[in-house]
Amino acid sequence: MNAPLDPKRTLAELKELRRLTSDDNGAQRVAFTKTWLAARAWLKGKLAELPLETHEDAAGNLWATLAGRSETSVLIGGHLDSVPNGGWLDGSLNVLAGLEVLRRVNAQHGGKPPVTVRLVDWADEEGARFGKSLFGSSACSGTLDMDEARSLRDGDGVTLPAALKEIGVDFEGVKKSGAERARAAAYLELHIEQGPVLLDLGLPLGAVLGTFGVERHAITFRGEAAHSGSTPMNRRRDAFLAAARMGSEIYRIAERHSGVCTIGSCVTKPGIVTSVVEECRITLDQRHLEPAPLARMLADARAAADRFASEGGVSASWERIWRIDPVPFDPDLVGLCEESIRETCGTAHRLPSGPLHDAAEMGRAGIPTAMMFVQSLRGLSHNKAEDTREEHLELSIRAFDRLAGKVIERVSGGR
Amino acid sequence: MNAPLDPKRTLAELKELRRLTSDDNGAQRVAFTKTWLAARAWLKGKLAELPLETHEDAAGNLWATLAGRSETSVLIGGHLDSVPNGGWLDGSLNVLAGLEVLRRVNAQHGGKPPVTVRLVDWADEEGARFGKSLFGSSACSGTLDMDEARSLRDGDGVTLPAALKEIGVDFEGVKKSGAERARAAAYLELHIEQGPVLLDLGLPLGAVLGTFGVERHAITFRGEAAHSGSTPMNRRRDAFLAAARMGSEIYRIAERHSGVCTIGSCVTKPGIVTSVVEECRITLDQRHLEPAPLARMLADARAAADRFASEGGVSASWERIWRIDPVPFDPDLVGLCEESIRETCGTAHRLPSGPLHDAAEMGRAGIPTAMMFVQSLRGLSHNKAEDTREEHLELSIRAFDRLAGKVIERVSGGR
Repeated sequence: MNAPLDPKRTLAELKELRRLTSDDNGAQRVAFTKTWLAARAWLKGKLAELPLETHEDAAGNLWATLAGRSETSVLIGGHLDSVPNGGWLDGSLNVLAGLEVLRRVNAQHGGKPPVTVRLVDWADEEGARFGKSLFGSSACSGTLDMDEARSLRDGDGVTLPAALKEIGVDFEGVKKSGAERARAAAYLELHIEQGPVLLDLGLPLGAVLGTFGVERHAITFRGEAAHSGSTPMNRRRDAFLAAARMGSEIYRIAERHSGVCTIGSCVTKPGIVTSVVEECRITLDQRHLEPAPLARMLADARAAADRFASEGGVSASWERIWRIDPVPFDPDLVGLCEESIRETCGTAHRLPSGPLHDAAEMGRAGIPTAMMFVQSLRGLSHNKAEDTREEHLELSIRAFDRLAGKVIERVSGGR
Repeated sequence: MNAPLDPKRTLAELKELRRLTSDDNGAQRVAFTKTWLAARAWLKGKLAELPLETHEDAAGNLWATLAGRSETSVLIGGHLDSVPNGGWLDGSLNVLAGLEVLRRVNAQHGGKPPVTVRLVDWADEEGARFGKSLFGSSACSGTLDMDEARSLRDGDGVTLPAALKEIGVDFEGVKKSGAERARAAAYLELHIEQGPVLLDLGLPLGAVLGTFGVERHAITFRGEAAHSGSTPMNRRRDAFLAAARMGSEIYRIAERHSGVCTIGSCVTKPGIVTSVVEECRITLDQRHLEPAPLARMLADARAAADRFASEGGVSASWERIWRIDPVPFDPDLVGLCEESIRETCGTAHRLPSGPLHDAAEMGRAGIPTAMMFVQSLRGLSHNKAEDTREEHLELSIRAFDRLAGKVIERVSGGR
């Protein structure tokens, strides 16, 4: 009997896509560019080999539907778009693994599975060009902030609505994409981890518990400029000192609550070698899988900043840049995901996702959702050095297909 | 008997100069500009009322000489130039107090004091336009780095040699100014403190022990960029963390050695909210009055940076920006300075100078040197808010004149 699932074919297709859409600096499938359109055209060619209905929705997302005996559907999602100079797997692994699952389901059920199975290639997951990620999936979920999105511009001043018009999408109508969610009973996504957790554990695969909630702020400390030679240390109101004390403190806060905290930027004014720093602005990004510890991490950071400011005779002011609640995935589906991994490679691990994914938008929209992670070498992504061992990729496709099978079975059983 | 010294006249002249050369943003006597030339022309008018020989030297410094019975000379120095938007006293107090001392000496000795007394208005003490301070006095002392100075450019791309040519100075010949040092037996300078030490002590005047030596470096920490969501805290190589730990450490180092240390600038790369900092460059300015503790402060900072780098899995590289040795002033003259202050206002205090002054160049050239500081309100300078109480200014002129008298007496006695 020919095994209908062929992970090696998916690997060959991933490499074919890499050849078509990468250069010496990595993948160049930035959303809405010619290279991205070429990747989509190539994908449509593959989809055409199966008995699928294929169309692009109101937000530019590509849907391929294998109609089942029931209209209730299981969604499998990914994104062909990449950051500039990106990796070969981020996004496209999900799309091509999903394609392979469609092939297997189609072969197994003679073109008519018990429920409808749909593959979606989301538009502009990365947000590389307009600085706003999850465009297509947030249009579909309904969370897209239209006023904010309307005014987004790329580096050349082109607006998002203008860029969408170029590919035939009317910005004002993008939320009509939400109609695609009708009858969706589950959403599944396979992704590279983009971090070192599975690598450190020596495990190929993990079941994702959900995506971290994020609190993202800028903190500005304001003290007083003073001559570096004539100002005694105890007379200084040093804005950098207060900011610097946050540098170590966020590690204690993250440890206390088992989350992550990052100071990614520090800007000093006047920023000259002969003056105590008058103003220092840092950014703070805090993430946690649960709302309460996330709120406590933020409260701890505020208290620490206030204490350091007060002890240093400076002021601290906060400005929220962005926030999102944690999105826990569906416990039943996470369980099936873990089971599929264990059946495929013996050991499973549950872990949260630090980065956001389209799956979070589907979870927020109320669709029971699960994600599977496959180990990333060096824990890297968004970089041409991003990579995963081929045997792990094959395992991930097998386990993901197994998960899809279990979910189709559960959904068709009405459970 | 009419008191020949009239501190109130000096105050009136300081205010006259302020009216002529300031705007709403402060003093605008930047060296080599029209406003600076106007200030000089105004000064020359005042000098012309006395029996002085006046000329500009090869470096553009203005010398006014009251010939005495001996060619051995006592020098009194200051600078009319200011930073843009500067204060009314920084530099010009010395010049106008020196003018008043010349008037008193001339009156007391009937135009022929026992030794020659000379007032010098140094060119470009501030270095505001070309970023290099002490131009005129370092040309005179011989320490000016000609290769470095030749290539200095202002914000409009004009070179220092071109700017000097505009005022009739041949750059290649500026060190001929050194001839002015012949027969100089002492150099005296009165200056605002530019710091809060005398203010905190509630004292009007202080005797300056010397100028701090300076070690000025850039430290670059290099780690690894990593996703702020997917990278566990214990897997980070965070360049900002190492730099931030230096923020507190320099306070401990400064306290341990009784010096001052300043981190004035911090630059992060990639410097985005969603990435651990890959590279962080800070500047470190360290100052001490004595060479050995200055060297220990630098060694401590190097050891701390290496330790923080090693503990954080990052590298630390150092680049020297500039250094200068401490310049201790002449102990006998510092003693006379303290005595003059005590006789004038009861209490004296000895303190080092954090900022550099032209006096340091004269001290480095081997001329016995002393400086007197007068209290600065709010400890501020280089700012239109720079100020000193009028009664303190009057005391400073009296005490400085007393010092000049003592030094003339000592020099003429051949001691």
